[in-house]
Amino acid sequence: MNTPAAFAAQTQSRPYPMSMKYLCHALTLGFSLAILTSVSVGDEPVFPHKMPEAKPDIPMSSAMQRMFDYPAPRVQDNELFSQFKYTRLKGFDYAGGDGTISRRDPSRPILVDGVYHVYYTKRHTIVPPIGWNRAAEATDEIPSTDWDLAEIWHATSKDGFTWEEQGAAIRRPAKPNPGWRSVCTPDILVWKGKYYLFYQAFVEPSGLKGDWCPVSVSYSDSPDGPWTHGGDSVIPFGKKGEWDQDATHDPQPIVRNGKIYLYYKAAYNKWPELRNKYAVAHGLAIADDPLGPYTKHPLNPVLNSGHETTYFPFKEGVAALAIKDGNERDTMQISKDGVNFEIASCLSLTPTAAAPYTPDAFTDTKDGRGVTWGLSHFINAGRPGKGYSIIARFDCDLSLDVDKPSFKSTGIWHKPDVYFQQGLRPGDHPEGR
Amino acid sequence: MNTPAAFAAQTQSRPYPMSMKYLCHALTLGFSLAILTSVSVGDEPVFPHKMPEAKPDIPMSSAMQRMFDYPAPRVQDNELFSQFKYTRLKGFDYAGGDGTISRRDPSRPILVDGVYHVYYTKRHTIVPPIGWNRAAEATDEIPSTDWDLAEIWHATSKDGFTWEEQGAAIRRPAKPNPGWRSVCTPDILVWKGKYYLFYQAFVEPSGLKGDWCPVSVSYSDSPDGPWTHGGDSVIPFGKKGEWDQDATHDPQPIVRNGKIYLYYKAAYNKWPELRNKYAVAHGLAIADDPLGPYTKHPLNPVLNSGHETTYFPFKEGVAALAIKDGNERDTMQISKDGVNFEIASCLSLTPTAAAPYTPDAFTDTKDGRGVTWGLSHFINAGRPGKGYSIIARFDCDLSLDVDKPSFKSTGIWHKPDVYFQQGLRPGDHPEGR
Repeated sequence: MNTPAAFAAQTQSRPYPMSMKYLCHALTLGFSLAILTSVSVGDEPVFPHKMPEAKPDIPMSSAMQRMFDYPAPRVQDNELFSQFKYTRLKGFDYAGGDGTISRRDPSRPILVDGVYHVYYTKRHTIVPPIGWNRAAEATDEIPSTDWDLAEIWHATSKDGFTWEEQGAAIRRPAKPNPGWRSVCTPDILVWKGKYYLFYQAFVEPSGLKGDWCPVSVSYSDSPDGPWTHGGDSVIPFGKKGEWDQDATHDPQPIVRNGKIYLYYKAAYNKWPELRNKYAVAHGLAIADDPLGPYTKHPLNPVLNSGHETTYFPFKEGVAALAIKDGNERDTMQISKDGVNFEIASCLSLTPTAAAPYTPDAFTDTKDGRGVTWGLSHFINAGRPGKGYSIIARFDCDLSLDVDKPSFKSTGIWHKPDVYFQQGLRPGDHPEGR
Repeated sequence: MNTPAAFAAQTQSRPYPMSMKYLCHALTLGFSLAILTSVSVGDEPVFPHKMPEAKPDIPMSSAMQRMFDYPAPRVQDNELFSQFKYTRLKGFDYAGGDGTISRRDPSRPILVDGVYHVYYTKRHTIVPPIGWNRAAEATDEIPSTDWDLAEIWHATSKDGFTWEEQGAAIRRPAKPNPGWRSVCTPDILVWKGKYYLFYQAFVEPSGLKGDWCPVSVSYSDSPDGPWTHGGDSVIPFGKKGEWDQDATHDPQPIVRNGKIYLYYKAAYNKWPELRNKYAVAHGLAIADDPLGPYTKHPLNPVLNSGHETTYFPFKEGVAALAIKDGNERDTMQISKDGVNFEIASCLSLTPTAAAPYTPDAFTDTKDGRGVTWGLSHFINAGRPGKGYSIIARFDCDLSLDVDKPSFKSTGIWHKPDVYFQQGLRPGDHPEGR
């Protein structure tokens, strides 16, 4: 397989004239160089027992060359590797789990005057969702999906563990205004003293045409609202035939280079003509003002994998968490420019719809410090016919400012029953029979 | 971060003169090219809604360029992506889970005359292991680790689900012969009508010096034995200062190019002088005869990640499963030459010590077909102080010959409690406090 890394391996072993290359290695490796050159089998130097601090100047396999291009050659030292630990939140009522109340798609928490604020999709309906495939049967009171007939709600917390629900932030506007059917999947921007909520605004039950939906925005002088409608279709759909022709989902803004970088998600290669063949990618739209206009980056999409959007400033660039979908599912990614992302580590048990508390998301930092906790959701809190989602907390060490070795352990030791719950089902046909 | 892929992105956009590049794309893309060039925002072509079959000739981000270098741009179409489904085996007794009986590190099953045979580490001791850190207290009857005081055992099955234990294949030789303390972690080779077991042979309790151990080999005319000792230290340790100076673990042979390709694992950067700083890599040693001599590949190590060894022929090359350790943990990898591996997909809930049934492992195939099931182990079947491991079955679709859509789904929907079991522990210090 001719991966980019394979290509790089073929070409980059001699990216500089030898003299310059030697100079670079000599400066960075120092004593290590002397050790390295002393280890050899016959005439061939052998990779050393002590991990070199930089790529050694010896013949190496593709994998070992690549190892030195990660944030650290040892994953335990990699500032963009972490395990994730989960805590059930206190303070949210779910009607005994009957499926009529659902909370999901949390915004990143923001800290204002010592209080954390979060905004999220809340569905409170007379019955649980009847399902994507039955969207045509949805009514003004019966939801198709878990995010149909939803509103944006607001909760606060002193510690990030116990939350107090404050009420609706964005209610559904009157029909036929965008969002009359559902407003959901919010994220927050703080810009010049004002607060902006970006969210999806549905004009039909999700599922009718495969979750077609653009992004709206509202703003307020306070994290407590009230919120003023600021615009619809902030990120325009692509033209027919373009990857994001039907959806600009899951908006997540950060401030970078004095502008608003608004990341979003779109499923493509999709229903109806390509049913069950969908792929997910992520785009970037940039604006000088939160209300727009937003210009899509010409190199979009910027991620080939991932489901929900999770981006945060990291060092001079932007880090992203790509979960679930795509060949690079369950990876951290890093870019220097917010556009050209590379894999930084491979993860396990990743948070779904992760929204990390990101103190420098809106400070236009040139030295992003990373994240240590956030909120995420679980969409399968219920049981068949009683589906709903819950918001939870995750902790991690994706931060340059803390060092939590327990998050850098590479193993997750689930009990065997966790694996056996992922068992063969009818039709899985062992051995292809 | 300057990853190889980033480097490739900078350089490979113009690997050929434009005329040749256009010709290649025109030939491979055909009609797609016409569609692509019709999709544009202003003068810039935009990535299309319908997934292109080959890398489109438009400006793209690093991630989207990279997407076309995987076995398929959609992970669901990627022959080297699979979910793993687990089944508890029938037929093995574990003494009620008191920790005195443990089975782990299965060999790849082989099918001989309609019967599957497997070889594995079995520990049956008077007490459970006392632990790595108390290795100095181990006696001739008290094991340090789960693989101390172990033997290689043999079981058979008609269906791969229900197994019948047949007895010991390789017992510990008399002291001071290599393996007197423990023989464990076997794998099998079938070569010219004979059967060869490769395994680790300990001469001290594991943990005393950090699991130092070389590989021994025994052979038989029958999968049922008896087994004749064929040699020790088959894969020599590296010289002091080389990555594999102290260990050549987890031997796994395949036949390729008329030779035996024996993959192995070594932890390096390790105890005692670098305690808790270990890294794991994988090497390749090649021989013309199963008993050796084995020549290490000059580009070793060949994998920068992974814990146990799992390699199988795939198309013209070799595929590998890298779990748990390293920046590329939980990935499938592919190489054309068995040496230079690249990431082929990112995985979830991977099998530990995976040993897939690989019908063409020893046929010197030039067209490896992949695997659909195998055996793996869980090391935490017990409870604190009663530790032991169990062998289990996994099913997957890493095969060119079957198409099991249920294994290509990208999501795993654990119940929330599976996540909450991975919760904060004392010392995890939320928010770095």
